Amino acid sequence: MNDISKLLAAARGDVPSDVLVTNGRVINVFNGEIESVDIAIAGGRIAGMGAGYRAKQVVDVKGSFIAPGFIDAHVHIESSLCTPAQFAAAVVPRGVTTVVADPHEIANVAGADGVRFMAASAKGLPMNLVVMAPSCVPATPMASSGGAIGVDDLNELREHGITHGLAEVMNYPAVTAGDEAMLAKIAAMTGRPVDGHCPAITGRSLNAYVAAGVGSDHEATTVAEAKEKLARGLYLLVREATNARNLATLLPMINPANSRRICFCTDDRTSCDLLEAGSIDEMVRRAIAAGIDPVDAIRMATLNPAEWFGLGDLGAIGPGRKADLAVFDDLQRPKPRLVFSGGILAARDGFMLSDAAYRASGHSKKLGKCDIAWENVQFAIPAKSDRIRVIGSQTDQLITEHRILPSKAVGGKTVADISRDVLKISVIERHRRSGAMGLGFIQGFGLKRGAIAGTVAHDHHNLVTIGADDISMHAAAHAAAADGGGLAIAVGENIVARLPLPIGGLMSDEPIAEVAANYKRLIASARELGSALNDPFMAMSFMALEVIPSLKLTDHGLIDVEKFHVVDLFV
Amino acid sequence: MNDISKLLAAARGDVPSDVLVTNGRVINVFNGEIESVDIAIAGGRIAGMGAGYRAKQVVDVKGSFIAPGFIDAHVHIESSLCTPAQFAAAVVPRGVTTVVADPHEIANVAGADGVRFMAASAKGLPMNLVVMAPSCVPATPMASSGGAIGVDDLNELREHGITHGLAEVMNYPAVTAGDEAMLAKIAAMTGRPVDGHCPAITGRSLNAYVAAGVGSDHEATTVAEAKEKLARGLYLLVREATNARNLATLLPMINPANSRRICFCTDDRTSCDLLEAGSIDEMVRRAIAAGIDPVDAIRMATLNPAEWFGLGDLGAIGPGRKADLAVFDDLQRPKPRLVFSGGILAARDGFMLSDAAYRASGHSKKLGKCDIAWENVQFAIPAKSDRIRVIGSQTDQLITEHRILPSKAVGGKTVADISRDVLKISVIERHRRSGAMGLGFIQGFGLKRGAIAGTVAHDHHNLVTIGADDISMHAAAHAAAADGGGLAIAVGENIVARLPLPIGGLMSDEPIAEVAANYKRLIASARELGSALNDPFMAMSFMALEVIPSLKLTDHGLIDVEKFHVVDLFV
Repeated sequence: MNDISKLLAAARGDVPSDVLVTNGRVINVFNGEIESVDIAIAGGRIAGMGAGYRAKQVVDVKGSFIAPGFIDAHVHIESSLCTPAQFAAAVVPRGVTTVVADPHEIANVAGADGVRFMAASAKGLPMNLVVMAPSCVPATPMASSGGAIGVDDLNELREHGITHGLAEVMNYPAVTAGDEAMLAKIAAMTGRPVDGHCPAITGRSLNAYVAAGVGSDHEATTVAEAKEKLARGLYLLVREATNARNLATLLPMINPANSRRICFCTDDRTSCDLLEAGSIDEMVRRAIAAGIDPVDAIRMATLNPAEWFGLGDLGAIGPGRKADLAVFDDLQRPKPRLVFSGGILAARDGFMLSDAAYRASGHSKKLGKCDIAWENVQFAIPAKSDRIRVIGSQTDQLITEHRILPSKAVGGKTVADISRDVLKISVIERHRRSGAMGLGFIQGFGLKRGAIAGTVAHDHHNLVTIGADDISMHAAAHAAAADGGGLAIAVGENIVARLPLPIGGLMSDEPIAEVAANYKRLIASARELGSALNDPFMAMSFMALEVIPSLKLTDHGLIDVEKFHVVDLFV
Repeated sequence: MNDISKLLAAARGDVPSDVLVTNGRVINVFNGEIESVDIAIAGGRIAGMGAGYRAKQVVDVKGSFIAPGFIDAHVHIESSLCTPAQFAAAVVPRGVTTVVADPHEIANVAGADGVRFMAASAKGLPMNLVVMAPSCVPATPMASSGGAIGVDDLNELREHGITHGLAEVMNYPAVTAGDEAMLAKIAAMTGRPVDGHCPAITGRSLNAYVAAGVGSDHEATTVAEAKEKLARGLYLLVREATNARNLATLLPMINPANSRRICFCTDDRTSCDLLEAGSIDEMVRRAIAAGIDPVDAIRMATLNPAEWFGLGDLGAIGPGRKADLAVFDDLQRPKPRLVFSGGILAARDGFMLSDAAYRASGHSKKLGKCDIAWENVQFAIPAKSDRIRVIGSQTDQLITEHRILPSKAVGGKTVADISRDVLKISVIERHRRSGAMGLGFIQGFGLKRGAIAGTVAHDHHNLVTIGADDISMHAAAHAAAADGGGLAIAVGENIVARLPLPIGGLMSDEPIAEVAANYKRLIASARELGSALNDPFMAMSFMALEVIPSLKLTDHGLIDVEKFHVVDLFV
């Protein structure tokens, strides 16, 4: 008997099911009711609901509530610095059994191979990984990425069943302008979900963006923006990321008449955030606490994203659907005590029941390169004038100011000036040993000495370093770049702390708890060196992102984002 | 510039749109609100909404409400006895701009060619015809159908973009039993909508049916049945057909928490019903009259079916979607005064603005055959015993009784007995001139003289005749079978009324108003001959349907439906 025959035999009650979950109060997202009903599970799927089922194993949940497993509607797993397996180890105990992932970061490092790696990493995990195809790799020609995803790649990934739809279409100017290459990517996903990313666009530009075939957005930061996007037909994915928090702002606009077109997503969360605050489960609790009906809140985390993404066998408790279940006791504060994934009890009381399968496989270390032409690396900057452009970073913002300040020169070199918090910043190409390197200065990081460095630098993920002196920068950069990439902090030639990220220079192959502990040490060390930022490593990772205004640094040099070209350091 | 480039240029406001609809109150099915906003249309699609648009033509609707065009979630167009073009002429003025059609009847006559004909007939119509692939053709091996649809046909129809999903899976015993051929048909539509049809199944059988991959049902006739189906994850398509009326029964179970998984459908409506009562528009008005919020009611007729069927460019008013709009004045009683289809004003005040394109093309007459081996046709029945089986038809029911009654014999022949309303019935194979013919007797039709005949006989659509004497039966049968098929009524050798159905013996190529008038004449004539039935022709068309209990007649003979085999007329 094949799988479906077995499932139907169990559904009919002709054979015992594998598991019978009894005495549960089921959150029925189809009709909005709470239903006392048994759930029979066979072959990982829900065979039936109701009376009269036998099973090899009976799980009596003693009156607990049972929700469908939660779905994260949009997330970059790479932001946890962990593999999908370790990401799962953090979120599955929270009841998140499905994530719709955009492997945008690893794709910028390793192209379609990176996307395939993420999809392959999901095999055997107690978490459904719905991989969306990155739509904007590379972001611009003004930096050297390691990989690129063209229409041919999209077609190939789609045809091989690797990707489900098109991930956040960030290049909204190209979409609204009708850029042919951009529209060809959308056309390659006809009939499939196309996620959007259109911060603050409104009116006719928004109309054009939606008319082009984009179906969702997760960048709304005000009620007015969210309402307009929803009214024009975009699914609203309310985002609560570590560094971009929109939930509290947007909760008041959610009501029973519009909630079915609204989902939750985390976009980017650090390992610490995932382990301490949680994931979609936290958003559900906060939505309920804000007064949203618990069933509606759970529906936003389950059926709604399943409908938007066309995931007909997820997002609800019903015959034929995957038996992904979150069992909890307090309807006002759902905190899963048991989590079933594909019919298997995967987590209990916040902990995974097994982590045997959660190590990334070794081949992943070959993803991308961290191969630097050190012979070309030169941190010293010969002084050419007494006025320089300085990147003005701002607390908790990706946008920078384009500042022009007097420079400090020592021995014919332009150097950092701690007294004014002017640090040196470098971006070194690391994917193909080109020797390309950009140098500049930056304010806002607060280091009094030492340097921080990392191979996480959106979107191209070259080696970025910020420091008070060249010796520290050299040491930090070398330490970060060792063994395929990572994060590091140095004072002089001393490496103070380090987090290796051997998978593409973006992800660790260690358990997420170790990654989180290591990451905390890095941040604590940066604080000791004088940085007052919440997370100087994450802040640094956006200083090289040449699509967000105003002044950024890539391996091509300083980028004036408004003018969209390279500008000289000296004015 | 290609279509999408033009649309985006209009959306941006860089070029004038084709049409600007101003001063409308738009029913926004995304957020449940009513929004005063202009709608700009270009190339048949909605380019944008809001201020600042210019257009070649401005339509000021002066404060009217504007809903998305209605969607009929399940209909057999053939039941109107009209072509898709003439069906459209009836429903488009009602605001129904999309129908999800199951060409089950024409497929039983002409197989995949029938399905292709229906899809091709939609070209140029102001109505979107979403064709679902018939799933159960033929219904059983106990009758001779003209066509068959196998898995290969399904694959071919799907791959050529003819069909969108799988139509009502009626053979629910095969589904729940895990019949391989049936499951293969469902598997052929993986990832696409699979409509169900499972009257009165419940509990574990329902679980198995849903687990097999079916996603909707339109056969619920009680609140309990509807609630259970909805709770198990089936989309509920509430049906109000001419001969199966469930709307009034099911309206009380609809509430804001469950309505988003509920749609409306008409299934089978006669031409008279469509012209007099209407279509989905009538269901919307009755739902509102019953207390359902108008926006929710409209959503059940628009966005909900668009979501279930994955019709992302229909079912709502939003950029990029087809400009299918129903304009009306009374929110409590939506009766469209203007209907736009694909941005073109198609109907005004209940009438189509043009019917130039609405004649069926000539090639359609070659669909299927009505080719009878008259040399084998013999209505006389030699008397073999004095007790016969009689089909006991019942008013407004498809189910019959299996009666055993004394026979009446004249001159060695068993004959009709008007005094007890025992009429003769025949079913003559008409698709391949096989000469197969079944003969029997039936009660409940009430004819005192004459005979009625037709080539509409679910599902095989052979030639069925019911009459008081053999001469009338012969005349009626000949008249019905002439010119490709049709309906006829005769008294002796006189043809009293006739409705030719040259397209497959199922559909007229005349205007729907003429079809309706002709049909009324047929029924009036049957009444004059003594029949008290509301619609003896429709009732007759189900007396040959060998899947509905208890006793039916096909060209194979009398069928005992419970025993699923042929039984002898004489006991």
